[in-house]
Amino acid sequence: MRTGQIDDDLAEINIMNKGLLINTDLLVEKIHFSDEISNAKDIGWKCITTNISDLICSGSENIISFTVGLVLPPNTHWEWVENLYEGMMEAMQEFGGEIIGGDCSCGETKMISITAIGEMSPPRLHRGNALPGDYIVSTGFHGLSRLGLALLTSEQLPTEVQISPELTNRAIKAHKRPQPAVKALKALIECKPESTSWRAAGTDSSDGLIESIRGICQSSNCQAVLSKTSILKYPDWPKDSIWDKWILNGGEDYELILTLPKEWAEALSKKLKYAQIIGFIKEGKPNIFWENLEPINLEDSNQYQHF
Amino acid sequence: MRTGQIDDDLAEINIMNKGLLINTDLLVEKIHFSDEISNAKDIGWKCITTNISDLICSGSENIISFTVGLVLPPNTHWEWVENLYEGMMEAMQEFGGEIIGGDCSCGETKMISITAIGEMSPPRLHRGNALPGDYIVSTGFHGLSRLGLALLTSEQLPTEVQISPELTNRAIKAHKRPQPAVKALKALIECKPESTSWRAAGTDSSDGLIESIRGICQSSNCQAVLSKTSILKYPDWPKDSIWDKWILNGGEDYELILTLPKEWAEALSKKLKYAQIIGFIKEGKPNIFWENLEPINLEDSNQYQHF
Repeated sequence: MRTGQIDDDLAEINIMNKGLLINTDLLVEKIHFSDEISNAKDIGWKCITTNISDLICSGSENIISFTVGLVLPPNTHWEWVENLYEGMMEAMQEFGGEIIGGDCSCGETKMISITAIGEMSPPRLHRGNALPGDYIVSTGFHGLSRLGLALLTSEQLPTEVQISPELTNRAIKAHKRPQPAVKALKALIECKPESTSWRAAGTDSSDGLIESIRGICQSSNCQAVLSKTSILKYPDWPKDSIWDKWILNGGEDYELILTLPKEWAEALSKKLKYAQIIGFIKEGKPNIFWENLEPINLEDSNQYQHF
Repeated sequence: MRTGQIDDDLAEINIMNKGLLINTDLLVEKIHFSDEISNAKDIGWKCITTNISDLICSGSENIISFTVGLVLPPNTHWEWVENLYEGMMEAMQEFGGEIIGGDCSCGETKMISITAIGEMSPPRLHRGNALPGDYIVSTGFHGLSRLGLALLTSEQLPTEVQISPELTNRAIKAHKRPQPAVKALKALIECKPESTSWRAAGTDSSDGLIESIRGICQSSNCQAVLSKTSILKYPDWPKDSIWDKWILNGGEDYELILTLPKEWAEALSKKLKYAQIIGFIKEGKPNIFWENLEPINLEDSNQYQHF
């Protein structure tokens, strides 16, 4: 078992001193996707991109290949399957990789199992790599996918407000066509100061911003102190603080959440437009606080729905 | 896309001139397994060994790792999951490999998705590698798993006969605890005459003996001529010829079905106890005949049930 294998979402194997990262994700109908909300192309896109996100947030720049296991009820239209693969192809054209094999079977509900393989490159990001003194960096906006889901399902919003057409489009796109943080990883690699090693903690915010930081604290046995005002809000995001819960715990965002030595964090926040230092790591039993030491309600964390 | 990628069950990737074989298999409850017939330990064993069989029959001697995707209904007993993993571990202890990651989710029916990774070694066996003049070699008995299934489900047998206790045990074991043809692959590698190259066609008989040969003929664009009397029958196997259908099309046997140059085939049949030359490959539109040129009813092929 290699470093961080238990704490991270994916695993690594080593062949002739070359590391590979392997990630398996399941998507089950009515749990992770629904034909009522997303068409098959969007589902195909999401299968591949969410899997790529796990590779990216572990430090893999080079996506090699995918295998696809597909369970389908016998009454599935062939067009649905074609569209699913078309969405997968679109994602692979944009982010790399190719489907090299798989299996299919009939079954009562649709299920998609994707195994992605990427090439390991420094930095090898682990949840368990954080150290006291690190700065916590988020590479983009949070809450958009959760808002997109609410808009798609006509769910009641936290407060009755008018959502601007631009925010509406952006939120729905974030939910249906998530973008793995490829550029952010590239920037992270490019801006590493010579004075620091490649040691960095990282994960994506697919389970929500707070949940991703909680995971790092847990795996690294440390505490996080967050600055509420440093967390980015998308322009036009409703002002009322009750909307913060979707930024903090919305889920299905795919930004990188990193903890880095000060110089590296500062270099990244200069280089990458929406990269933001949102707090720091300190010693202590795993926990997260606001900078005024108010505890963060972790019970809200990881309460997001998938679709 | 590499040679044979389309025709074979698995795929390969190359890292620094080192080849890896990747195989994904799905097992869906009520399609591939049933709690009424097999306990969770046996299901775990079967998940891993059937997957290993795909690596073995492609020529991989070194099983590296597995990822496991598991969909379970919320009412699944924890003990079932523990036993499933115990069965998997037993298989890995015997045949190699380790579970390095995976994913789980709830869902209406149980589903297990396994991705196995093995190291490529010569011979790299493909369904599409057969050449006219090759001898066809089977490495063991067929029909046992099908008989085991019938005994486990109290299905009516082809004729009313008494099945000996030894055959009963062996058949049930073949169905519940299949053995990948590890020894057969080792023997194949060890006995290759220096005068021949590593070129060989191969697959396993998981879909039935005839179906595996049909696959080779299809992928290699050739014909197979089989000798009925050369096909091994397990001692005590019922004599009536109606029982042959389970030998030919029973399925869920995991022997190697190979086509080899004459010298290699003869060396293997000498070296490996149950390896048997059962026919030869000739030019022609894909088809299979008995040596008296009687055609083989291919409609019976691939008609096996999974459990």
